[in-house]
Amino acid sequence: MFSLKEILEISGCECITSNADLIKKYRGVAPIESAASEDISFISASTYEKFLSTTKAGVVITSSKESVGSSSYVHLYHQNPNLAYAVLSQKFHPRRQFSEFRHPSAVIAEGVTLGKGVHIMANVVIEEGSKIGDQTVVFPNTFVGRNVTVGERAEIRANVTIESDSMIGNDAVIHASCVIGSDGFGYAIGKNQVEKIPQFGYVVIEDHVELGSSVTVDRGAMGETRIGKHTKLDSKVHIGHNVKIGSYCLFSGFVGIAGSTTIGDRVILGGHVGVSDHISICSDVMVGGKSGVSGTIKKPGIYMGFPAVPIMEWKRSVVYTKKLPKLFRKEK
Amino acid sequence: MFSLKEILEISGCECITSNADLIKKYRGVAPIESAASEDISFISASTYEKFLSTTKAGVVITSSKESVGSSSYVHLYHQNPNLAYAVLSQKFHPRRQFSEFRHPSAVIAEGVTLGKGVHIMANVVIEEGSKIGDQTVVFPNTFVGRNVTVGERAEIRANVTIESDSMIGNDAVIHASCVIGSDGFGYAIGKNQVEKIPQFGYVVIEDHVELGSSVTVDRGAMGETRIGKHTKLDSKVHIGHNVKIGSYCLFSGFVGIAGSTTIGDRVILGGHVGVSDHISICSDVMVGGKSGVSGTIKKPGIYMGFPAVPIMEWKRSVVYTKKLPKLFRKEK
Amino acid sequence: MFSLKEILEISGCECITSNADLIKKYRGVAPIESAASEDISFISASTYEKFLSTTKAGVVITSSKESVGSSSYVHLYHQNPNLAYAVLSQKFHPRRQFSEFRHPSAVIAEGVTLGKGVHIMANVVIEEGSKIGDQTVVFPNTFVGRNVTVGERAEIRANVTIESDSMIGNDAVIHASCVIGSDGFGYAIGKNQVEKIPQFGYVVIEDHVELGSSVTVDRGAMGETRIGKHTKLDSKVHIGHNVKIGSYCLFSGFVGIAGSTTIGDRVILGGHVGVSDHISICSDVMVGGKSGVSGTIKKPGIYMGFPAVPIMEWKRSVVYTKKLPKLFRKEK
Repeated sequence: MFSLKEILEISGCECITSNADLIKKYRGVAPIESAASEDISFISASTYEKFLSTTKAGVVITSSKESVGSSSYVHLYHQNPNLAYAVLSQKFHPRRQFSEFRHPSAVIAEGVTLGKGVHIMANVVIEEGSKIGDQTVVFPNTFVGRNVTVGERAEIRANVTIESDSMIGNDAVIHASCVIGSDGFGYAIGKNQVEKIPQFGYVVIEDHVELGSSVTVDRGAMGETRIGKHTKLDSKVHIGHNVKIGSYCLFSGFVGIAGSTTIGDRVILGGHVGVSDHISICSDVMVGGKSGVSGTIKKPGIYMGFPAVPIMEWKRSVVYTKKLPKLFRKEK
Repeated sequence: MFSLKEILEISGCECITSNADLIKKYRGVAPIESAASEDISFISASTYEKFLSTTKAGVVITSSKESVGSSSYVHLYHQNPNLAYAVLSQKFHPRRQFSEFRHPSAVIAEGVTLGKGVHIMANVVIEEGSKIGDQTVVFPNTFVGRNVTVGERAEIRANVTIESDSMIGNDAVIHASCVIGSDGFGYAIGKNQVEKIPQFGYVVIEDHVELGSSVTVDRGAMGETRIGKHTKLDSKVHIGHNVKIGSYCLFSGFVGIAGSTTIGDRVILGGHVGVSDHISICSDVMVGGKSGVSGTIKKPGIYMGFPAVPIMEWKRSVVYTKKLPKLFRKEK
Repeated sequence: MFSLKEILEISGCECITSNADLIKKYRGVAPIESAASEDISFISASTYEKFLSTTKAGVVITSSKESVGSSSYVHLYHQNPNLAYAVLSQKFHPRRQFSEFRHPSAVIAEGVTLGKGVHIMANVVIEEGSKIGDQTVVFPNTFVGRNVTVGERAEIRANVTIESDSMIGNDAVIHASCVIGSDGFGYAIGKNQVEKIPQFGYVVIEDHVELGSSVTVDRGAMGETRIGKHTKLDSKVHIGHNVKIGSYCLFSGFVGIAGSTTIGDRVILGGHVGVSDHISICSDVMVGGKSGVSGTIKKPGIYMGFPAVPIMEWKRSVVYTKKLPKLFRKEK
């Protein structure tokens, strides 16, 4: 329960309603359609405005300073209501807390360094030379190879595999069944001959990165594969060897980045997007779902299709392809 | 071994051959090309009719009441031979049976409820508040989080992760390396700021659902993600947060459904199909492999392409795109 | 450290530099841009030729017998420098060696046969009737079902699931979170009825196959699913039931092969490629990333698009589709 005063402080919202009760406490966050008078809600898109006249929410955050509807609620303003809402929801739903613990079934090699407050669950296996930072929790049946470093306050969930020499930053979250530091897909091809190129590099995952379930990140062939701070990957993303990804990126499910490609900051990739090897994508690029990026992108913007082109170009080709039957009929 | 009389009862077939020996026993099911006289076979497509004159199968199920070929076999009729065959094969190949058992290495929290005949294999970890229904089997190295409910006669295979609060129905089959109830991909984006939207919902998997290996199903952000009864998902399907899927659906490998999308009953999605967030697909829709569904589909039918359109429209655009070089040559 | 003499023997290179010091030893392999005088490097593509005049590498392998640049290095010739490099790198970076070992936490059923020098790590579970060949290593938290055969010198990494009756060849490498022998996606469909077709076949993985992290290979419905010798699959590839894959194939991430399809030798599939069920692809075919193969391919060559066509045809359709707006403008 937080008071309106605390809510304003946490969220950075401005209170539009005059004479609002700053001491009144609220129990949580809820969708505009189903919120009750003890709840805080928000409106991010104009399609939800219709609910403003009927909502039972006690507090509503909008991106407009003009009040709409019956205003039975306390009206807060934020230029990015979604962001204000996320920050508030984090306060109402803090992460599960763990105290220092080591399950007797865990198999931890001699010389492994466990920080203060580290919580190791059942059947975790940690090999020699590894180091787990303060307050980090490792869920059951996870394997951590040799010389791995995990930062502070990280959360490594169940059935994860972290191969040798990987470095995981502070506050990183690695969801179940992720594999970090597996060999990259590197082979030299001859006539009826396929020779493995040894993969002796490593993976660096910076602070505040979150990897969804079943994400795979290959180690560098030599040198590093790197995922920049605050980047978030959805389930089943695959990152090839020696890929470098900047900060604040968001990649949706089934995105695949082939070897040695470099990606800037704030890049957003839709589901099933594939990016070829040895190319680069500059910062502030968005690529629509199902697209394939086969060449370097040097200009910020929205891209789409296969091969990916600026979105207006893609939309035009979709429209014209639809018109083709008509064109051919005319020809005859 | 089942007698012809039993085979007719189990499969619901009609015996076309007069004077067939109802007491004669058969040992199993086999493909029409390789079946022996002790085997039952079937023909589902006309491409297999050529084998009717040479097959050595003792019994053949077809969708025609007219006999074809040498008829050395007993001829059974069923309007859906594939279905009759599946039901018969289930009798000949019953699922592996397990008796009540709990491997000493399993780590089961106090207060966990295990039903009658539950079989828990090695290194399984089950957290507090969870409940496993009668006759259910859990394979090695699987993790079940807090307050999970698993129904009766379910099969949870190896290295699976079931996160807290998930509900799994009766007769569900969860194949190896599945992750159920992981956090959804929900973030609010500011300027050089990405804030996690806490994911505190849950997953409901209804009765008779089967999830292939490495399937991932995210928990609701708030409220539920639901997979309806008798729906079957192939390996590596990903279901986003707050998705609702109806009954009797079939999704092939690498299908991804983005957050908050609703899908009706009997929807069939081909391999690598992507479905956008916050849309809906009505019942009785089929979408061809590699397609992308970016808008709501309200009419049953077959769809294809990206963006997905009715299949005839897609086929036309493929044909006309092929004709383009010719058209351009004419222009000059 | 290997001497130039040993390097020539291992790699099969020809020494172009006259009077080269055959006794001098080199410490490793490195990229042309960053190699030092103790390193060996190579040039595979003409884009790297610019580095020849400035490289500090002690030895450079090229596919030309003519020396270029300052030639401060020893110049070796090989018609496939990439291959020579891979073979040399394997010598400088030999695989981690393991001695005979069985972690006390491993749960190995009675009657399981473990060969000489087998190394079984913590929490591995092996069911009855299985056989692990000499010198094979099994990483933590891996599950091996009943009647599985694993060959000699194989490497099965962490959190892998090998279901019953699978056969894995010699020198195979199975990366973390792979699932081998899970049920195929086989159902018979009636009206509001989906019946499972029992999957009682098995998987054969031949010698020298390498499976990337999170690869899934389904067992045959009846009979086998087979992956031929020296074939390498990237992370997150899925192979459906009863698929047969030849030798020396390379499939990139997210490739999916649907049931009963047959693929020849030396087939290379790009990322996200989907191949339909019940078709075949002949030997020596390459299919570009993101393509969909929906019909049998009988002619070696490079294919692209969806449906996949010879690459020149695809390139033409991309070019002409781009020209469409112009064409339509002219029409008006």
